[in-house]
Amino acid sequence: MSDFPKFVQINEEGPREGFQFEKGPIPTERKIELIDALSETGLNHIQVASFVNPNRVPGWADAEQVVSRFNRKQGVHYTALWLNTKGLLRAMASNRLDVEGSFSLTASEKFLARNQQCTMEDNIVRAHETLRLYKQHGIRLKRAGLMAAFGCNFQGEIPHALVLDMVQQLLDIAGEHEMQPEVFSLADTMAWATPKSIRELVGKVRERFPELTLSLHLHDTRGMGIANAYAGLEMGVAIFDATVAGLGGCPFAAHKGAAGNVCTEDLVFMLDEMGIETGIDLDKLIEVARLAEDIVGHPLPGSVKMGGSLNALRSRMH
Amino acid sequence: MSDFPKFVQINEEGPREGFQFEKGPIPTERKIELIDALSETGLNHIQVASFVNPNRVPGWADAEQVVSRFNRKQGVHYTALWLNTKGLLRAMASNRLDVEGSFSLTASEKFLARNQQCTMEDNIVRAHETLRLYKQHGIRLKRAGLMAAFGCNFQGEIPHALVLDMVQQLLDIAGEHEMQPEVFSLADTMAWATPKSIRELVGKVRERFPELTLSLHLHDTRGMGIANAYAGLEMGVAIFDATVAGLGGCPFAAHKGAAGNVCTEDLVFMLDEMGIETGIDLDKLIEVARLAEDIVGHPLPGSVKMGGSLNALRSRMH
Repeated sequence: MSDFPKFVQINEEGPREGFQFEKGPIPTERKIELIDALSETGLNHIQVASFVNPNRVPGWADAEQVVSRFNRKQGVHYTALWLNTKGLLRAMASNRLDVEGSFSLTASEKFLARNQQCTMEDNIVRAHETLRLYKQHGIRLKRAGLMAAFGCNFQGEIPHALVLDMVQQLLDIAGEHEMQPEVFSLADTMAWATPKSIRELVGKVRERFPELTLSLHLHDTRGMGIANAYAGLEMGVAIFDATVAGLGGCPFAAHKGAAGNVCTEDLVFMLDEMGIETGIDLDKLIEVARLAEDIVGHPLPGSVKMGGSLNALRSRMH
Repeated sequence: MSDFPKFVQINEEGPREGFQFEKGPIPTERKIELIDALSETGLNHIQVASFVNPNRVPGWADAEQVVSRFNRKQGVHYTALWLNTKGLLRAMASNRLDVEGSFSLTASEKFLARNQQCTMEDNIVRAHETLRLYKQHGIRLKRAGLMAAFGCNFQGEIPHALVLDMVQQLLDIAGEHEMQPEVFSLADTMAWATPKSIRELVGKVRERFPELTLSLHLHDTRGMGIANAYAGLEMGVAIFDATVAGLGGCPFAAHKGAAGNVCTEDLVFMLDEMGIETGIDLDKLIEVARLAEDIVGHPLPGSVKMGGSLNALRSRMH
């Protein structure tokens, strides 16, 4: 119990994940409205857009417009996603983003083959290309990540030994470019983790790589998101990705409408009530979660936006 | 970690909670259909009906009809809820139920005043009446419970010392009637618990009353249900109430549509994947969760019924 961090860093990925996943066209102004509202909650890290191929991800065809017009708030890091040189150059060209380098490998060969049409070897070649690009443009390496670290819908269980080897491989690849990631992310891309497997795998990674600062990217597709975050906290993890209202669904779920990322305000609720600082105003964030539902035009999975915060109740008692 | 139980007992309360909460009239046949489907999943304890005042709970005006016609499956305990002598006599008259005695107190005076229009003292008087009734009818005392043990929407935090005193009080009341509850239930009636408060309070109750077999009645109104169950498991709790698909909402939530009880199939998913036995067939239970949605005619909160089980995926891989 004494292991709980005092402060947890939350990386909000709602805009990027949500507008990428939603089917209907969402007006650029409303995307900006969500980002601006998130900026007022105390979140200090918001992934605002995806610079990807607009033919493949039509929801982000307006990335430039969104990024050129949202209000930058002092003290907030605004980041974006890109998958190749072209995307990186688009992100840099905006001059309005905190361009932080990240690269990842994927622990499942079958997932890679099905979803990125590439092999493990191809992926390693790409990783080197990415890091060369960062070096060339003077971009620091913020984050290295391993996707599908807890299991894969196409490959099944991922052996812990493979995960440990791949963490080493990621560090070696970065090392070849004289870089070191500041944060190492373990991603439960297809929602295979349980609190027990979080504890076991995080425990093994911490034991083998005690110098790494770990973060968790969790999905809630099978309802384990918050419990998994709690297990991560128990293991001392203090950095989590999340999406407001649980924006962003899961393309690999058995049925449409399944949850995607773990929900930011539910996570902040738990942290608040456990006395762990986040710098985020939960009641403001709940309002933004309701705004997100209004913007996408259908119910989103988060719970606290329905149940209400306890502080709102407490303030009414006095 | 070594504290995890090997087997977890789940008490399914979906029919009773769900049909009590749902607004629309649900045909008796469909209630029976749900109970019969639940009986085929391996669940061994199903609360099938509520014998309460039909003017106050119109959803259970047909309790007698439901109870007289569902298929009793060997090895399954079928229980019901009642709140007074009349209800108990109705339950006994059916001759088709496992009539197990239970009684409870509530840790919040303000909740009692608002919801049951009574004081702590009134509640104690009623508890004695209930136990006298059990004695008179030869009903064993299965369960004693404390409601609102983790906090109250009207009173706020509940001091741990009060909870410990009230557990003792419940045991003393039972003792006055020469009874001992087989199970002691701590209920998070208004969803104030977090995994941390579960650990702390369960830890204190276990320390003071090491002889008690504890169970948890958890609500998911603020998205903490599964995480709280996990924290309970870490503390060795091996009995949980739950409702299929998360049937039964929360009348005290900030917004309509908030979740109620923790969802049975999400809980079973976690237990399965952690290697803890329940005797329940998850994929059959997921089918029943979808049936429950069909019966109530609107989406219900459980996640695994959308995300799908991992065993279903694993079996497709081989």
